Amino acid sequence: MLYEHLSESCLAANIGDGGLSEAALGRGIEAAVGALGRLRAARDDGSLALLGLPERSDDLDACRPVAEAYRARFSEVVVLGTGGSSLGGQAVTALAGGGADPVAWRPRLHFVDNVDPDSFHDLLGRLDLARTGVLAISKSGGTAETMVQLLALLPALEAAPGEAGLAERVTVISDPTPSPLRRLAERHGFTCLDHEPGVGGRFSVLSNVGLLPAMIAGLDAAALRAGAAAVLSRTLAAEDPADAPPALGAALAVGLLEERGVTQSVLMPYADRLAVFARWYRQLWAESLGKDGTGTTPIAALGAVDQHSQLQLYLAGPRDKMFTLIRLETAGLGARVDPALAGDEALAYLRGRTLGDLMDAMARATAETLAGNGRPTRVIRLARLDEEVLGALFMHFMLETIVAADLLGVNAFDQPAVEEGKVLARKYLAENVQGPAS
Amino acid sequence: MLYEHLSESCLAANIGDGGLSEAALGRGIEAAVGALGRLRAARDDGSLALLGLPERSDDLDACRPVAEAYRARFSEVVVLGTGGSSLGGQAVTALAGGGADPVAWRPRLHFVDNVDPDSFHDLLGRLDLARTGVLAISKSGGTAETMVQLLALLPALEAAPGEAGLAERVTVISDPTPSPLRRLAERHGFTCLDHEPGVGGRFSVLSNVGLLPAMIAGLDAAALRAGAAAVLSRTLAAEDPADAPPALGAALAVGLLEERGVTQSVLMPYADRLAVFARWYRQLWAESLGKDGTGTTPIAALGAVDQHSQLQLYLAGPRDKMFTLIRLETAGLGARVDPALAGDEALAYLRGRTLGDLMDAMARATAETLAGNGRPTRVIRLARLDEEVLGALFMHFMLETIVAADLLGVNAFDQPAVEEGKVLARKYLAENVQGPAS
Repeated sequence: MLYEHLSESCLAANIGDGGLSEAALGRGIEAAVGALGRLRAARDDGSLALLGLPERSDDLDACRPVAEAYRARFSEVVVLGTGGSSLGGQAVTALAGGGADPVAWRPRLHFVDNVDPDSFHDLLGRLDLARTGVLAISKSGGTAETMVQLLALLPALEAAPGEAGLAERVTVISDPTPSPLRRLAERHGFTCLDHEPGVGGRFSVLSNVGLLPAMIAGLDAAALRAGAAAVLSRTLAAEDPADAPPALGAALAVGLLEERGVTQSVLMPYADRLAVFARWYRQLWAESLGKDGTGTTPIAALGAVDQHSQLQLYLAGPRDKMFTLIRLETAGLGARVDPALAGDEALAYLRGRTLGDLMDAMARATAETLAGNGRPTRVIRLARLDEEVLGALFMHFMLETIVAADLLGVNAFDQPAVEEGKVLARKYLAENVQGPAS
Repeated sequence: MLYEHLSESCLAANIGDGGLSEAALGRGIEAAVGALGRLRAARDDGSLALLGLPERSDDLDACRPVAEAYRARFSEVVVLGTGGSSLGGQAVTALAGGGADPVAWRPRLHFVDNVDPDSFHDLLGRLDLARTGVLAISKSGGTAETMVQLLALLPALEAAPGEAGLAERVTVISDPTPSPLRRLAERHGFTCLDHEPGVGGRFSVLSNVGLLPAMIAGLDAAALRAGAAAVLSRTLAAEDPADAPPALGAALAVGLLEERGVTQSVLMPYADRLAVFARWYRQLWAESLGKDGTGTTPIAALGAVDQHSQLQLYLAGPRDKMFTLIRLETAGLGARVDPALAGDEALAYLRGRTLGDLMDAMARATAETLAGNGRPTRVIRLARLDEEVLGALFMHFMLETIVAADLLGVNAFDQPAVEEGKVLARKYLAENVQGPAS
């Protein structure tokens, strides 16, 4: 099994009134039967393109020459895009390098997902532009941030000619339909890959949007899909939603919201390489469920470090949160404390222990302390963290989100509320960029 | 003025029922009179050491030789510590480099605040250990994470002798009282600087804990303190809390919680260099207020990128959040879009615009859209972002947090709930590091 899903500590039977009652869980599981049926139908009739991705390979074949050329030619690759066009790739490629300080790759990947003029200037100053490749991702082909990033970068690239011509230095992923980004790419001869039309940004990590960056980072894209496929098939094969962890997770989250007023969902992996994964989840859950006045707030946390930042609130603040800890088997891993260096009697408990031992002890203690304080807590245990397991986690949380949307009665796949702000921003930009007088 | 605090869009008079009523705001301001009086008394009798920091310089004099030696000797500096021993330094030094990708400094600073064996291994592999200095920070001198980090790093340092001897390559900041860290430092001859005894980790950014890293990064520590001093004196001089932005902010937050059930406080700067600042705030607010079943949940966000991740939830999800946007004057800054490159008619609105124009338009549009949807929103406007302004922001939010604790009737300075987990983790570590059978 790629992961183990332990949710006993979400139940009132085990943690008291903070937990979900058996009756409410039963109602949630009952409701999830319908949601799973709709997922099965969508897989069978092909109406949800996401569910077909794990079995595909043609699109990866199209990515392969780009990935190989980029690995051979470039010391740096800049990935332009924002939101779902960036977070999936960031979350995947964190697997290839230290999550906390991701400068270890060759080529180095730089995800530019903001339009901060200082950061952009700093990045340009650090890049070896003659040996830099670019990947620009925008589903619509008109995202303002991505277009400005690319239009600002192109003159700098042209001013630093490399062995590869400009046309070979930029690749674009965008919807097949005409768009400003497509037209720009065609005019300059950039390689264009199709963004999967039926897959929205926040569900796109298993498409070329997440997997081309993975391949450039030297990761095994097929293994990511295989892990996702395993979770998908197990979920859709389950007769009882209680046997399908994504459906059970959705029933728990929605049940805790409705029965206990649990309005926040904390995802707290104990692994730096999953820190960005938690931010990917934060987008997925927020944009998919936060509509029609409902939804819960996803919170990205990181163990063990957030024990020294958020745990006080989690344990002793309002009872408005559920917790998902991701525990990786780390016992015995990492540098070991030399007993001679830890001669101090107050350090006896550390002698001969490793960093991984401490991480493991922290994760275990926190899970038990949360549950012991009546806070609904589930644990996802991973025996290892590689492409297959990460692919499984992506699929788990995408399915959990889709089922939760079904239970809440909202459309998981749209984001209507952000349009107003986009229109307003374009208006200000086109007119005159001035704030109100101060 | 170092910053402008605009909170009209938090009020029911301007945004309707989602906002705070005039009566509730009045009650909050009335209550804050007492809180401000207690702050004034604490400054006058010296009982709150934090309030004396902005006027001091003796402790910076003690830091200066370390900072100068580190800048001269080392290409890399590793800062060990977790929670409040790390976040302040991270937030300050983000000013010196691109926030999104902080590898620009010389010496490079690496903040190690977790005990992930993979990240630690990756970092060791990338460091030029012979030219690496270490700063280990733990107030108690016994934090398990920090001790394990240091005990794991020392043998690697010894195995890579540099021009400087081991004793010159490690500096420690810890309470003056005896502790395992102090004893280890004394045994090896490391420089020991005193952690300000009366200042807890999450309030320590203006002490040597935050300012020694700042000085190593080449920042002006005195200017940070000057900015903080300006906010402190203005706040304590205010006769009416409505004229003291930190007190007004606290009254708004507590009033919105009590009158409108606003349980979450989103801090969303529109500047990559303030991304870590928002995480610093997240610790400050959570640990200071999250106790006795009360407190609100701080949420660190980042503009404009989180518009593509969280804004849907913020605008259309439950009405349980207040928003603080930090707007930096960026109009006109950054690379400008060449009109010839943006010949496409659909890109006309971008011609001649800069990255900074887009950032500014996004911030303005989002503030207005949130308010227009009845979401309580305040804006802090910065004309520039430098040490003085950053120091002002630190002091603003520390004072706001202390006043909010006073209004909620909780102790801002303790964190009793995290003890249980710490004890349990030490027990597991000392016994046998095994999770429950799977």
